[in-house]
Amino acid sequence: MKNYSAYLIDLDGTMYRGKEVIAEARQFIEHLQANGIPYRYVTNNSSRTPEDTAKKLQNFGIEASVEQIVTASMAAAAHIKSHFPEARAFAIGERGLTDALKEVGIEIVEESPDVVIMGIDRENNYKKLRNACLYVQQGAEFLATNPDIKVPTEKGLVPGNGAFIKLVENVTGVEPTVIGKPKRHMIDFALEQIGANAEDTIMVGDNYDTDILAGMEAGLDTLHVHTGVTTLDEIKNKDRRPTYSIETLEEWFK
Amino acid sequence: MKNYSAYLIDLDGTMYRGKEVIAEARQFIEHLQANGIPYRYVTNNSSRTPEDTAKKLQNFGIEASVEQIVTASMAAAAHIKSHFPEARAFAIGERGLTDALKEVGIEIVEESPDVVIMGIDRENNYKKLRNACLYVQQGAEFLATNPDIKVPTEKGLVPGNGAFIKLVENVTGVEPTVIGKPKRHMIDFALEQIGANAEDTIMVGDNYDTDILAGMEAGLDTLHVHTGVTTLDEIKNKDRRPTYSIETLEEWFK
Repeated sequence: MKNYSAYLIDLDGTMYRGKEVIAEARQFIEHLQANGIPYRYVTNNSSRTPEDTAKKLQNFGIEASVEQIVTASMAAAAHIKSHFPEARAFAIGERGLTDALKEVGIEIVEESPDVVIMGIDRENNYKKLRNACLYVQQGAEFLATNPDIKVPTEKGLVPGNGAFIKLVENVTGVEPTVIGKPKRHMIDFALEQIGANAEDTIMVGDNYDTDILAGMEAGLDTLHVHTGVTTLDEIKNKDRRPTYSIETLEEWFK
Repeated sequence: MKNYSAYLIDLDGTMYRGKEVIAEARQFIEHLQANGIPYRYVTNNSSRTPEDTAKKLQNFGIEASVEQIVTASMAAAAHIKSHFPEARAFAIGERGLTDALKEVGIEIVEESPDVVIMGIDRENNYKKLRNACLYVQQGAEFLATNPDIKVPTEKGLVPGNGAFIKLVENVTGVEPTVIGKPKRHMIDFALEQIGANAEDTIMVGDNYDTDILAGMEAGLDTLHVHTGVTTLDEIKNKDRRPTYSIETLEEWFK
């Protein structure tokens, strides 16, 4: 095992499962802290603010500062700011997104936007989706925080942001730039935040189709942990395998 | 040209274009009336009631009674009533749909439905779509009035009912039974209403992908008229051609 100088770490399925902490993950973080190894949590969740997420981790007994949280919304806001510096944005999303946009000084407008940015919005409605379609047809750049089509809940699968971006895509024929995993933009943004190189950093996550692919896309080594979505057997059948694949994070620093 | 004993006739692109009547179509209807040939207007529009549509035609100077209007919502209500007689329905839709369901005695519920029926709904929102997804996963029958993904307006393309049913399909993995054109259910229903056989009836419309295909599916002869979506040249390149293809309805009874 190589000595990595920085870690990017997924949350759900890696640090916790729903409302239950993964004990080995907590010890893993304690090890990183004790050894002064820098790390960031990277999450496709676009509705929570970094404050919400830090608090959630703290409630699990995991030390986490707001600065250690990187969300797809923050990465999307940074992407807009750097590619379209004066852009006015039409945003479909919750506080995690609108706060992130305001944070970097992007003006949020209801009409004539230069950019349409979509994150999950439990207040989404026909009018917002219609406007998103019209603005994209009028030439606004089309961005999305994350492409998750469906989200598991206790009651069953509910629509994720990906379901709504597909709707706009089907109407307009325009594909959005997706910022979150499995795309590389959020990983690149997290590396920048941490001041680390891709070669010396490892991406840690449970989900092959999001965490591991995003890490690979950005040129990082990857560590798959089987405490969430993807099993070790599934990993064995992949053409492109993660650098490492383990049962729990307990095995890592042994 | 065969003497057809009944006509099924599309509306938009065939009888009128947006807010403008097609004069030849009005004369065509006058000929049917003068000769006592029965006919029905068949429309994928699920939001308008038959009263709304009859009034729209009357405002164009076209005689039309409420009984002559067949909507995808009416056909959907009849389909539910005959296949799931005691069904309680969760309905996403406007008055054209909810009125049609009540008309045949289907109870509309917000929870634990046996059927999920979706039509266009300009008050659609996250909660309705989430509930539709959950009910379909719980085993409710999934039906849709019409599959139109996008609808042209003066401002651009806006989401049609098909965009929202695709969303529920993407989340649940379940395809709905579609009642409207290009499926045959609404055509079958219109034949029943008029008391006519498929062999003696002709379907008239401007749109190959909806009107003509639906007519063919239901075993009718078909008359394509080039006053709307599909051109005569496009028709020439189709493997399955309509029985007749003409520039305007003026040519038909000459």
